[in-house]
Amino acid sequence: MNSQGLFQLIQKKRSFLCIGLDSDIGKIPKHLLEKDDPVFEFNKRIIDNTHELAIAYKPNLAFYESNGSKGWKSLEKTIEYLKKFEVFTIADAKRGDIGNTSAQYAKTFLENLDFDSVTVAPYMGEDSVKPFLAFENKWVVLLALTSNKGAFNFQFLKDSKSGKAFFEEVLTQSRQWGNTDNLMYVVGATQAEMLGGIRAIIPDHFLLVPGVGAQGGSLQEVAKYGLNKQCGLIVNSSRGIIFASGEKDFAEKANGQASLLQQQMESILRENGLI
Amino acid sequence: MNSQGLFQLIQKKRSFLCIGLDSDIGKIPKHLLEKDDPVFEFNKRIIDNTHELAIAYKPNLAFYESNGSKGWKSLEKTIEYLKKFEVFTIADAKRGDIGNTSAQYAKTFLENLDFDSVTVAPYMGEDSVKPFLAFENKWVVLLALTSNKGAFNFQFLKDSKSGKAFFEEVLTQSRQWGNTDNLMYVVGATQAEMLGGIRAIIPDHFLLVPGVGAQGGSLQEVAKYGLNKQCGLIVNSSRGIIFASGEKDFAEKANGQASLLQQQMESILRENGLI
Repeated sequence: MNSQGLFQLIQKKRSFLCIGLDSDIGKIPKHLLEKDDPVFEFNKRIIDNTHELAIAYKPNLAFYESNGSKGWKSLEKTIEYLKKFEVFTIADAKRGDIGNTSAQYAKTFLENLDFDSVTVAPYMGEDSVKPFLAFENKWVVLLALTSNKGAFNFQFLKDSKSGKAFFEEVLTQSRQWGNTDNLMYVVGATQAEMLGGIRAIIPDHFLLVPGVGAQGGSLQEVAKYGLNKQCGLIVNSSRGIIFASGEKDFAEKANGQASLLQQQMESILRENGLI
Repeated sequence: MNSQGLFQLIQKKRSFLCIGLDSDIGKIPKHLLEKDDPVFEFNKRIIDNTHELAIAYKPNLAFYESNGSKGWKSLEKTIEYLKKFEVFTIADAKRGDIGNTSAQYAKTFLENLDFDSVTVAPYMGEDSVKPFLAFENKWVVLLALTSNKGAFNFQFLKDSKSGKAFFEEVLTQSRQWGNTDNLMYVVGATQAEMLGGIRAIIPDHFLLVPGVGAQGGSLQEVAKYGLNKQCGLIVNSSRGIIFASGEKDFAEKANGQASLLQQQMESILRENGLI
């Protein structure tokens, strides 16, 4: 799927919602724990009840690895199940290593598991990111400005030569490594006011925006500063949707929360002439 | 194991060698592929033939994840096997995420798999690293200056306020988050001349030094600039040892290569009055 395909999906579903499958086995409803693969059962029910409202799903690897090889089985079954639906898939893995090692990670997520995209950490530079860009019709989602407090430790340090913040250097340099059809960026919703400056550097790239909901980011603010002519935004909500209820009605409650966000997104798309 | 324990292990084995178990199933000797778990069989033979020469082993997660849930089984068996020996274990995972997610990664590697340490990427700052430091007798190995070419993209950008390079900011800020008994740093051997400046910032921390061997770093240079009063160095070699031969004699050849490095290390330790 290229950026045009993403935009068409957004227009069709009148949504730019990504649902984060942070499916912590310690937090899923207790009655599922009797099942053979509780995490997959949980994901399946969430997906069944939200796939018309969301354009993308993003399992965060941490919550699968913590169950060891069983967790990887849950992940394998989840991505296989997601393939049945018209959705963009993101492996939220935040990987990055020297070239030959990054190539292995890329193969894992983009070929073996066949995700559409994988999140990558920029610290190790170009040769740690490039191997992920070598897969046709696949995407790198590069960390730029994250939604957590720790973003202020390093991401805002200002380079003495260019005068740019470190995350702006990440944007400026890395946009040369790929293009608007295989590279997008993580920009936290908690930093929505920064989106204007970011759009000045990368007007046409898609942004994956976490932090709406549990982390406190505002959808209106994100849209105000971040929309472009192809929408250009994929806004993620994880806990706010998947853990909307811890009881047997979890999937219906997830549908309710996703529905609220989809409706807000539909209004935003309409107001901006994008649908 | 604290830093004193690490130093005692170094003195006992007269070595500061770490062996990187980058056990790529595409590169291990063909005759092992008939086995039930070729990667574990490979690791077991490597460990059996080198554990007297090495103080640490470092499986790189990329090479296990690329085999999916089977790869995680190989990793689980490898760490269990490593526990039989007096060695320090490093999960080379380069993880890092927002706090609640980092806590899951930390649990995976330091509790479930029970590694002694895990490598962590610094880009997301303090709250992405701290959850890894919450485990008693366990270590964070934080990326500072990496051994690849891409290190020059961002790690050397100079902060306009402090005048420090970005990797020096990582060292300066992060040394406050932990201490010399739970925090060490990755510093690439290909940047050995930088070790003097690094030692000025963190004189007492252990450094994990990759890049000797296949990547071209020099052990003598690393020792010259990096040694401290507890040795303070763990030098890693991966491909140069484990793939010294692609034939049935791979484990003996690995022993030969590890032995050469151990002998050089013994000389260095002796010359510097550390044994």
